[in-house]
Amino acid sequence: MDNKMKSAVLEISRRRALLATLAILPVLPPALATAAWAQDAATKLSSWNDGPAKQAIIDFVRATTDRSSPKFVPPEERIATFDQDGTLWVEHPMYTQVVYCLERVPALVEQKLELKDVEPFKTVLSGDQEAIAKLPLHDLEEILGATLTGMSVDEFSAEAKKWLETARHPRWKRPYTELVYQPMIELLQYLRDNGYRTYIVTGGGQDFVRVYSEKVYGIPPEQVVGTAEGTKFGYDKKGRPFLTKEPKLLINDNFAGKPEGIHLMIGQRPYAAFGNSTGDQQMLEYTGAGDGMRLMMLVLHDDAQREYAYGPAAGLPYTRVGTFTQALYDEAKKDGWIVISMKNDWKRVFAFE
Amino acid sequence: MDNKMKSAVLEISRRRALLATLAILPVLPPALATAAWAQDAATKLSSWNDGPAKQAIIDFVRATTDRSSPKFVPPEERIATFDQDGTLWVEHPMYTQVVYCLERVPALVEQKLELKDVEPFKTVLSGDQEAIAKLPLHDLEEILGATLTGMSVDEFSAEAKKWLETARHPRWKRPYTELVYQPMIELLQYLRDNGYRTYIVTGGGQDFVRVYSEKVYGIPPEQVVGTAEGTKFGYDKKGRPFLTKEPKLLINDNFAGKPEGIHLMIGQRPYAAFGNSTGDQQMLEYTGAGDGMRLMMLVLHDDAQREYAYGPAAGLPYTRVGTFTQALYDEAKKDGWIVISMKNDWKRVFAFE
Repeated sequence: MDNKMKSAVLEISRRRALLATLAILPVLPPALATAAWAQDAATKLSSWNDGPAKQAIIDFVRATTDRSSPKFVPPEERIATFDQDGTLWVEHPMYTQVVYCLERVPALVEQKLELKDVEPFKTVLSGDQEAIAKLPLHDLEEILGATLTGMSVDEFSAEAKKWLETARHPRWKRPYTELVYQPMIELLQYLRDNGYRTYIVTGGGQDFVRVYSEKVYGIPPEQVVGTAEGTKFGYDKKGRPFLTKEPKLLINDNFAGKPEGIHLMIGQRPYAAFGNSTGDQQMLEYTGAGDGMRLMMLVLHDDAQREYAYGPAAGLPYTRVGTFTQALYDEAKKDGWIVISMKNDWKRVFAFE
Repeated sequence: MDNKMKSAVLEISRRRALLATLAILPVLPPALATAAWAQDAATKLSSWNDGPAKQAIIDFVRATTDRSSPKFVPPEERIATFDQDGTLWVEHPMYTQVVYCLERVPALVEQKLELKDVEPFKTVLSGDQEAIAKLPLHDLEEILGATLTGMSVDEFSAEAKKWLETARHPRWKRPYTELVYQPMIELLQYLRDNGYRTYIVTGGGQDFVRVYSEKVYGIPPEQVVGTAEGTKFGYDKKGRPFLTKEPKLLINDNFAGKPEGIHLMIGQRPYAAFGNSTGDQQMLEYTGAGDGMRLMMLVLHDDAQREYAYGPAAGLPYTRVGTFTQALYDEAKKDGWIVISMKNDWKRVFAFE
């Protein structure tokens, strides 16, 4: 991960541990280096089956990092962006953050008793899963707003962290943070090993994802771009400054909001972008519009047995989450984006398998 | 710089050049390493005079990066934030970006002839420097809005880059990008050498500073936090996506807006923060409110001969830019923030001296 990389450089500057490590590694002659490079990719992407998706990744990394390549990209421009829900981890049957917000409602109502008999909080408190699943979008937004804002930044992080430690996914009975796709974890690391800075660019809440991004993905908080509300600086009773999460939307990091968020937060166009739904379409278009070689990939959920199968591109109906439409599939084919078939391209879906 | 660091790591993973370099460096025994560490700091901060400011920097870096120190900070949390105008480069007689905006007015009026006889554009076109200097803030804001938005992100960057190549500071007749403080450049590098990620957190325009931050400060675009408008994603006539700079303020990165911007863009509290005016006060307060050892420093412009002397803290009247008030000076003393006297603490102000 980036920070470990920096830490490593630090060590070099102190001329300590690395010296000993490096000294025992052989210097490869140029002819062998090529084979070693391919070997390295194969080892690091071991949860990927051989096929067009894996090959596209290897070709891209090779072409953009080999100094003798006409497609070489200077290290400072190596940016790769990843959607999260459905691209890095499971998004079914509900976005994890939405589950968090729903489960926060009882604690919220305890603090604000006046919400007890008011919709949509009343329905959430009823525990009627069918009714909850049917709540319209504006009701969900109201619940999100009420449970994600109004507290200090530190309070929010502490609550979210605590919840993530105990919450379990209904199907696998495991923490949500274990339901990350092992092939994508390998891809993140492989890109970082090749000098790419990996960013999450998610429609989910920036502050929510930042709570676990370093631990789960090796991505530090500053490399998480997400839907974000503003904060308000103020002082507590002892005169100590703190930030309160305000119900004022700054970044709606979905659809066109993704390239807009990327410009605001990163200021450079990515060379590679990964998504799984129409919410990622503009990010992939924006990435593809740059010069040189670019890599755009979409995860297709076509594996009901090991994960889920959903969306028109998998020949299945629309769902509330992660809509991979037929139109998106057609655009991918037309523009040379690579569709990752979970069923065919992934040898393994989860690390715990 | 960070990217070079990453590039270096890349090289290691390929086991090439660094091996040879490292192999000839001696491994220092632990007792000597301490002396070498101090020597290293002295060499790297060579434009600083010995004194409390330089010593505070060295003590801070040592305490937060030595693994045996009780104040040790893990590499992933090492964040340092720097104001730009008056902290990293000259801000007198006018913020450089304001000069840019004023000088863009003729080109703007050529495109929008209707502005020719409308204030404040009329005054700017008159070239009457005294009248221009007296324009009230809301007029300046109107000029900034008109010259910083309405074009594509790429067009803006190209224009700003072109201007920076030819524009000259009225006093030194040099490019503005040469009017950076050499001691601060050394400090940035010294912090990075010790695993800190260095960020600019400026009231100036994020997109403007990103044009030159890598070249001038070794700070990549994604580590520039500044006042930022939104952008709007769209397609050109050929269907290619692009971003337009919109006149919609997202981050007002001054005063309380600095810690708010830091939370949005970085998501971690800095361990060190550097400023020179009341616009930096809340950033320093927020930094100082964290656990462990923190370093807060303010540059005092008290050197009329080599640069400028201004502000009540230098016993001089208020100016439009960079107000270092007596109240800020008092807060610094009370809270243990270090005031850097340009006159006494800096052996050299500019690299070209």
